[in-house]
Amino acid sequence: MKAYAFGVDIGGTAIKLGLFDLGGRLCDKRELPTPKDDGGAHILPAVAATVTGVMKAAGIAPAAVAGIGMGVPGPVGAQNVVDHCVNLGWGVVDLGAEMRRLLPDIETVCAGNDANLAALGELWQGAGRGCSSAVMLTLGTGIGGGVVIGGKILPGAHGGAGEVGHLAVEIHEAVPCSCGKRGCLEQYASASGIVNLAKNMLAGSAAPSRLRQMPAFTAREICALARDGDGLARAIVSRCGRYLGLGLSYLSCAVDPEIFILGGGMSRAGDILLDPVRQSFRENAFHVSVSTPIVCAKLSNDAGIYGGARLVLGP
Amino acid sequence: MKAYAFGVDIGGTAIKLGLFDLGGRLCDKRELPTPKDDGGAHILPAVAATVTGVMKAAGIAPAAVAGIGMGVPGPVGAQNVVDHCVNLGWGVVDLGAEMRRLLPDIETVCAGNDANLAALGELWQGAGRGCSSAVMLTLGTGIGGGVVIGGKILPGAHGGAGEVGHLAVEIHEAVPCSCGKRGCLEQYASASGIVNLAKNMLAGSAAPSRLRQMPAFTAREICALARDGDGLARAIVSRCGRYLGLGLSYLSCAVDPEIFILGGGMSRAGDILLDPVRQSFRENAFHVSVSTPIVCAKLSNDAGIYGGARLVLGP
Repeated sequence: MKAYAFGVDIGGTAIKLGLFDLGGRLCDKRELPTPKDDGGAHILPAVAATVTGVMKAAGIAPAAVAGIGMGVPGPVGAQNVVDHCVNLGWGVVDLGAEMRRLLPDIETVCAGNDANLAALGELWQGAGRGCSSAVMLTLGTGIGGGVVIGGKILPGAHGGAGEVGHLAVEIHEAVPCSCGKRGCLEQYASASGIVNLAKNMLAGSAAPSRLRQMPAFTAREICALARDGDGLARAIVSRCGRYLGLGLSYLSCAVDPEIFILGGGMSRAGDILLDPVRQSFRENAFHVSVSTPIVCAKLSNDAGIYGGARLVLGP
Repeated sequence: MKAYAFGVDIGGTAIKLGLFDLGGRLCDKRELPTPKDDGGAHILPAVAATVTGVMKAAGIAPAAVAGIGMGVPGPVGAQNVVDHCVNLGWGVVDLGAEMRRLLPDIETVCAGNDANLAALGELWQGAGRGCSSAVMLTLGTGIGGGVVIGGKILPGAHGGAGEVGHLAVEIHEAVPCSCGKRGCLEQYASASGIVNLAKNMLAGSAAPSRLRQMPAFTAREICALARDGDGLARAIVSRCGRYLGLGLSYLSCAVDPEIFILGGGMSRAGDILLDPVRQSFRENAFHVSVSTPIVCAKLSNDAGIYGGARLVLGP
């Protein structure tokens, strides 16, 4: 009788692992630094050892575990084969086969892209609870995205569904994005993007701002100054929000989800960012979808482990 | 034993009706003018009479018919209830109940938006045959769109999935679209849109063009002149194509389909339009999806009846 599922989120810095019951309750949670040496060869053994440790501590037999759902920061093919995770030092890794070798008593192992799993987790037990479709944007150093429809991740024909960070929102951009294109949403609305946007807007204006006194600043500091009433900081956050709202309008014309969920560090800026996002979305979305809620994520850094467990359990 | 399905496409001008076998062969096809008088009250009786006539002519019993799938030019709710079809004179019409009353021996009646059914038809027996996902754009007087994933139409949470004509592709547009927004794809890449684009580009340039000698012109004439080497006409078609390619890149970042299918009158322009579409898509799409084929539809005006039959038969 299956009563539990594991969700694992393998990041470039830390591995997070959660034991969930079938109702979505997080029963145990572990975190360990990602052992990236030797081309990431020790990562999956560390996951397997932690899974075994958690099962022992809770007195759970392998037969009671429905499976392990694992998120990785890179593209995952149909057969749970990971194709190059730069952040983990991995080349092509057959994650399913490898985990079956390490934990032969666990019935199911499945893998997904971390941003997709975060979306699935938020839909299951977070901000999208009760919805059957959602698009989630994770606004971190870059922008990850996940599209969930009918309770299932939409991977896309080439693994490109939900690549919302690379929506071309600014046709007049001169500087290339890390992907090689120009004018991607990620260049304005990620944590690094808003810093670059700020530098450009400071250089292109004579308006006073406390940002001018700072030799360097972070996304968090820009948002804090905007909340404090710094006019230029507010204009920067507003422009960032407008690009985001425009991007959401594109997603809406394509998949028209029940809800948009914003996660990642940038989403903690709150209404100073969300207000221009919502306004720009209302201006650019097609009328039938114009009231789609745009909300902040609820599960924070645990969204990925929730999504991993849900990937095993299914909708 | 079910051996047939009907596909019906109810347009503002004509009703098209096809009898299909389970393998997707079009066995009989009828077309009649849409009787729009009395608030469209005679439309469904005319469909029912034609269905009965086709069954009699072919010697098919109602028990051999899997059902009737019907496309209408407007939004269709989950229970086959049509909510205002301006082109048909309809208010709220419970299409399922009405057809069951008219044809009580037919087991299944289902309905969908006509642009969605065209996409489904092209995926089944047209340009997308063999694919499991596609996005289709119908470039007519306006732009309709349909997203098909896993062989099924994606309707969206508010019926807005595939509303590709209202992607906001031009942030600097001053003139409003019919939907009230500004800068929608439909304002440049529909048959009426390219005519407006041409007028603006003629007014904003002194370049010679045979268009200047014409008191009025159509989308077809603009494309013909572009093919003939008229420089300004070519620039107009190219700009239209670039907006389309940009729009496709947004759809790609959202759903990443296996194939893009362009239908409707504008798609008959051929390579003079498709070349700039493909170039702009390559420049704006995320790298994993950059090779997604962009092709012309194959079923022409029959796509809708194919899609109707497929809606009944399922993937």
